[in-house]
Parts: sequence; structure tokens; C-alpha cells
Amino acid sequence: MKAKILQKPPASPLRAEILEQPAAVARLLDAEGARAPRILRALGRKARFVMIAARGTSDNAARYAQYAFALRAGLPVALASPSIVTLYKTTVRARGSLFIGISQSGMSPDIVESLASAKRAGARTLAIVNNTNSPLARAADEVLPLHAGVERSIAATKTYTAELAAVALAAESLRIADSPRAGRGLAPELYRTPETIQKALRCEAAAETGAGILRKGGRAVVLARGVHLCTSHEISLKLKELARVLAEPYSSADFEHGPIALAGLGLPVIVLCPPGTPAAAELRALSDRLAAKGCPVFEIGTRGGVKLPRAPEWLAPLSTIVAGQWLALHAALLRGLDPDRPAGITKITETL
Amino acid sequence: MKAKILQKPPASPLRAEILEQPAAVARLLDAEGARAPRILRALGRKARFVMIAARGTSDNAARYAQYAFALRAGLPVALASPSIVTLYKTTVRARGSLFIGISQSGMSPDIVESLASAKRAGARTLAIVNNTNSPLARAADEVLPLHAGVERSIAATKTYTAELAAVALAAESLRIADSPRAGRGLAPELYRTPETIQKALRCEAAAETGAGILRKGGRAVVLARGVHLCTSHEISLKLKELARVLAEPYSSADFEHGPIALAGLGLPVIVLCPPGTPAAAELRALSDRLAAKGCPVFEIGTRGGVKLPRAPEWLAPLSTIVAGQWLALHAALLRGLDPDRPAGITKITETL
Repeated sequence: MKAKILQKPPASPLRAEILEQPAAVARLLDAEGARAPRILRALGRKARFVMIAARGTSDNAARYAQYAFALRAGLPVALASPSIVTLYKTTVRARGSLFIGISQSGMSPDIVESLASAKRAGARTLAIVNNTNSPLARAADEVLPLHAGVERSIAATKTYTAELAAVALAAESLRIADSPRAGRGLAPELYRTPETIQKALRCEAAAETGAGILRKGGRAVVLARGVHLCTSHEISLKLKELARVLAEPYSSADFEHGPIALAGLGLPVIVLCPPGTPAAAELRALSDRLAAKGCPVFEIGTRGGVKLPRAPEWLAPLSTIVAGQWLALHAALLRGLDPDRPAGITKITETL
Repeated sequence: MKAKILQKPPASPLRAEILEQPAAVARLLDAEGARAPRILRALGRKARFVMIAARGTSDNAARYAQYAFALRAGLPVALASPSIVTLYKTTVRARGSLFIGISQSGMSPDIVESLASAKRAGARTLAIVNNTNSPLARAADEVLPLHAGVERSIAATKTYTAELAAVALAAESLRIADSPRAGRGLAPELYRTPETIQKALRCEAAAETGAGILRKGGRAVVLARGVHLCTSHEISLKLKELARVLAEPYSSADFEHGPIALAGLGLPVIVLCPPGTPAAAELRALSDRLAAKGCPVFEIGTRGGVKLPRAPEWLAPLSTIVAGQWLALHAALLRGLDPDRPAGITKITETL
């Protein structure tokens, strides 16, 4: 009988970076926790609104910012359409605004151009970037670096959570900059996110089980409400990139305005219902209705499915996404795909 | 031999309302063309930015507004997330903003609540509604009525084009309100849109041919760039509602950031490339790349596919959507569905 040779599986940059997330977010908070309130105070104290330009995964961080800036600092957020500048050569009034460009590489020419145009029109500008030696970083008044280290995986994970942490830090900085009574500094719960992400990482086995509903077929919808919409978008993007599942994110509110017509066809549905979300009752009722129609439903939250650690609602997207990353990774493996070599994607897409 | 009895097919409210669109838009322009500049001048002359709340089809009109307000009046637009008010009970700073609620029925409680919250926070408010005797109309400072008449079809068509026309009229009104040198009134091209929509209606046979790529399978993507993004969203929604095709709208720029991994699997792709769009070269190159990978591609624009009448870029969404409405109607018929009885949809969805 031959000796069984245990072979170490080849290292997966994707898996390594998923696991690195608590450390990456901790690095960012350590390095920028004291500095961010200073720069945001200078840039944004009198801002009436925020504009954000981003693409791909970073656009999902911008979706998070729509809620984080509103909930923490009462600021409305407009997601800038780069094509207004690049395609139509139009300058939008930007006085009284804080313009933020979010990009891992800082290399997307259309994001750089949007930020530069807003700056010329009177906006104060901030770059949230991993690569601080980049055109976007150079174009902005101030830079909030991600400190995520080099990203080797083609699908972004640790830079996404770092972007969310940077946005949370910026929102919290604007809250204390603007409110004289809030002068007691950043909310301590912000500093507990690395620990919460660490706990969330334990859900891999449960997420692997959930990935079973995505083994066959090529479609899915990912439902969420409120601040968790960014997570439904990011999970959908990961499912597309890694598992070649045409997953579509939906607000559970919008889903009942039409797309529900697609339900009852065996369409797999992922429902995000993290512990403590005020939309829990509504989401669970929808989840039950869809299951009764015959949709395979997988809940990310508390009931069955994946159980997640409790987090303050506004910070929950930083830990909830971990379940989706594991889900997409295992859906890819179940579908016979290599999540470290997704087809047809390059690392930087230059939109001109 | 029996005499052949010609039976008149039962009237289709959907078809009737698609055909009514030129008249509906003409009614709106006739009734509000003189009044809109006055009310928008009072509401929005000093606005620094615009916030819009809407759901479903009306949310696609809001997507159009992001471009129309930027291109015509240089105004940034933030799409308001109703859940910030309804779920999280948070008030967002709204001073210096014009807040617009868009809704056919004027009945969605979350849109009404968002507008009322913005009004209390200092925004000037406008309701774009078909039903002027509605809570949304009553809550707003001013009302811009759609004049689309009663909508009998479950899937919205004429109220969508009327909403686009109302947004175009509002954007153009803000342009002339804010620029002293623009005092020559509304752009005459606005008044030519009913005629352009009438010409676009002729593409039914071509759209019916195009629907062939959607006969089998349940997925598709609809690609566009710039101002035409609203059209890709609205076509996707119509394909879901009417034809039960899980169609996903994408910016052609974003599509290459990941979702392109799904291409080459026979995924049907609709590419919007209306005559004269500055993104034409880029869209055609993408269209060719996808066809080469094996995707069935149907172009809505000039080359092959559906040919559309030329329109000024900022007004093209009003006529381009017609091709998508015909496409969705015929995709439904080819798939054995009754487009006048889409499954699982009610006319008004009340999100609380």
C-alpha cells in the first residue's frame, strides 16, 4: 500500500485576503483614526452635500456612503455619473460640496477626471485610495489611504471592507466636525469592527452549505433593505465575477414593484437580514413568501442560513459582506470554477 | 365550406397606451410648457442640488433626471433613499435643495414621507404625479401633473414617457431660470419630442424580430452609456415584468469591471446605441466583442437591429424607450405570456 502523500493545496490569494480583512481594517483605523477627523473637518465642515464617483466594487462602497453619511452626519449623497464629465464635457455646480473619489488603484481615468472637474467647480475633494501614488490621490485636496496592502486577488475583498471602513471613518469624522455637542470623538464601536469581522469569518461552513442553491442554474437575486443594499450589490458582483451566476441585487421594497413576477420559477434568492436590522420583520415575511412560492431561499442573518455576529446597524455592512464572500467563493468551487482565476476580468479597467 | 369569421382581437391596454405616448407627451407640454418655468423659477432658482425620491418605473425617470438636470442646468442630483427616513427616522440636511417626488399614483407612502421630511428640513418641494388628487401632490409645494390620463395597463409605459417629459421640462425650466442669457425660453426641440416618439413607434416589426433572442432562456443584459442608462433600466424592468426575463441593466463602462465574465455563455445582450450618441464607437466595439464571444446581440440604434429616429442626446430617452417597450411586449408573446396580465404584480405597491 502506497503511503498517502498529503499535498498542501496551492495558496489562494482570494482566501488569504478574505482572512486578512480584520487586520486590514485595524491597520486603517490605527493609521487614520486620529488624522481623519482633522482632514474631514477642514474639507467638509460646511459641506451641504457629498458627491461620490466610483466604479465596480468601489461603487458599492459609495452605496454604503449614501447611508453612512446620511445616518451619521445628516448629509445627502449624490453618486456622480462620470459620463457627465467625460462623455458630455459638462461641469456640474459643486460649490458647497465635498467630492469623494473612491478607487483601489486610483487609476480609473474617468474617476480622476470627475474629481478634477468638481475641484475646478469649487468642491473640496478627497481621494479614498489604496495606492497613494496614483493619479486620483494626486488630483485630490486630501487623501484617505486604505492601508490594505497589495491586492493580489483579482476579485476585491479586503480593499472593499477597507473602503467601507474609510467611509465609516469619514462619516463619523463629519458628524463630530459639525456638531458641537458631539465633541467626544469617534464612536468607540467603530474600533470594534475588526473583532466583529473576525467573528463573521467563522461562518464559512454555513455559507458553503448555502452555496448549494447556486450549484445549478445561472441566476439569483440578492435582497436587502436600507444600509444593507450595498452588501446585496457587492455579493451580486462577487457571484458574477467568481461563480458566473447572473445575480441581481434588489431592495426588498423595489422587488415587489415588478421583479417579483419572476419568483416562483425556482429562482434562488439570497435574503440579507443581519441581526438587529429594523427591516427584519419585513424581510422575513418576504423570505417566507418567496419560499412558499418555491424559490430556494438562503438567509444571511440570524434565522437558519448563516448566523452573523451582532453589529450596530450602520457598521454591519463591514462584517455582513464576509458571508457573501464565502458564499461566492464556495459557489464558484461547487460550479467547478477557480475563484482565483475568474474568466474575462482584468485588474484595472480604464474607462475613458 | 364554412365562412371564415374574423374575430377582432381583444383590446390590449398595454398596446393602446404604448401607441398613446406621442399624444400623452404633447398634452403635458401643451398644458405645462408655460407654467413649468414659472413654478421651477420660484422653487429652484437658487438650488444648489436636487434630491429625488421615486420607486420602480418612476425611479428610472429619476435616473434620467440625474443626466437631464446636470446637462441642462448644471445641477447635481442625489437619488434619495426613502429608508433613511422611513426605516431609520433620520432627517437629512436639505437646505438649498430642490426635492422632487416622482410617482404615477402619488400614493407610495415612503415617497410621501421622504418629501415631507425634506420639506420640514428646508427643501423646496415638487411632486411629479399623474394623480393630482393624491397624498404626494398634497404634500408638495408645487405639482407638475403628467396629464397622461388613466393608466389601465399594469406595466407603465405612457406614464414613464410623460415622467421623462416632465423631468425634461423641469430641467429646461431650471436652465432658463438660472442663466440670464438663456432668457429665450424653452428649447424648441422639446416640442418636437411627440413627433419623434411617433416615428419611433414604427419600429415594432424590427423589435419583434429582435425579441427572438429572448424566446428561450430567462436571462439578458441591457447595456447603455450616459443619459441612456435610464432606458436600459426601464427596458430591463419591462422585460422582467412582461416577459419574465431576468434582464439586468448595465453601464457599458461597469460591465467590463466584472460582469463581462458572464459573457460567452450565450447570454443575450441588448445594446442601446441611439443615433448620434457620443458613446457610439465604444458601444459598437463592445457589441462586436460580445458577438464574437458568442452572445446573441441585438442593437437598438442605427446599425442592424432597430433603427430609431435621430433626437438630441438629452431628449433621446423619450423615443428610445419605445423600442424597448415593443421588444418586451413581443418577448412576452413569444414566451407564451399575456403582457396585459403579468404575474404577481399589482398596480400600486405601498412600501411603509
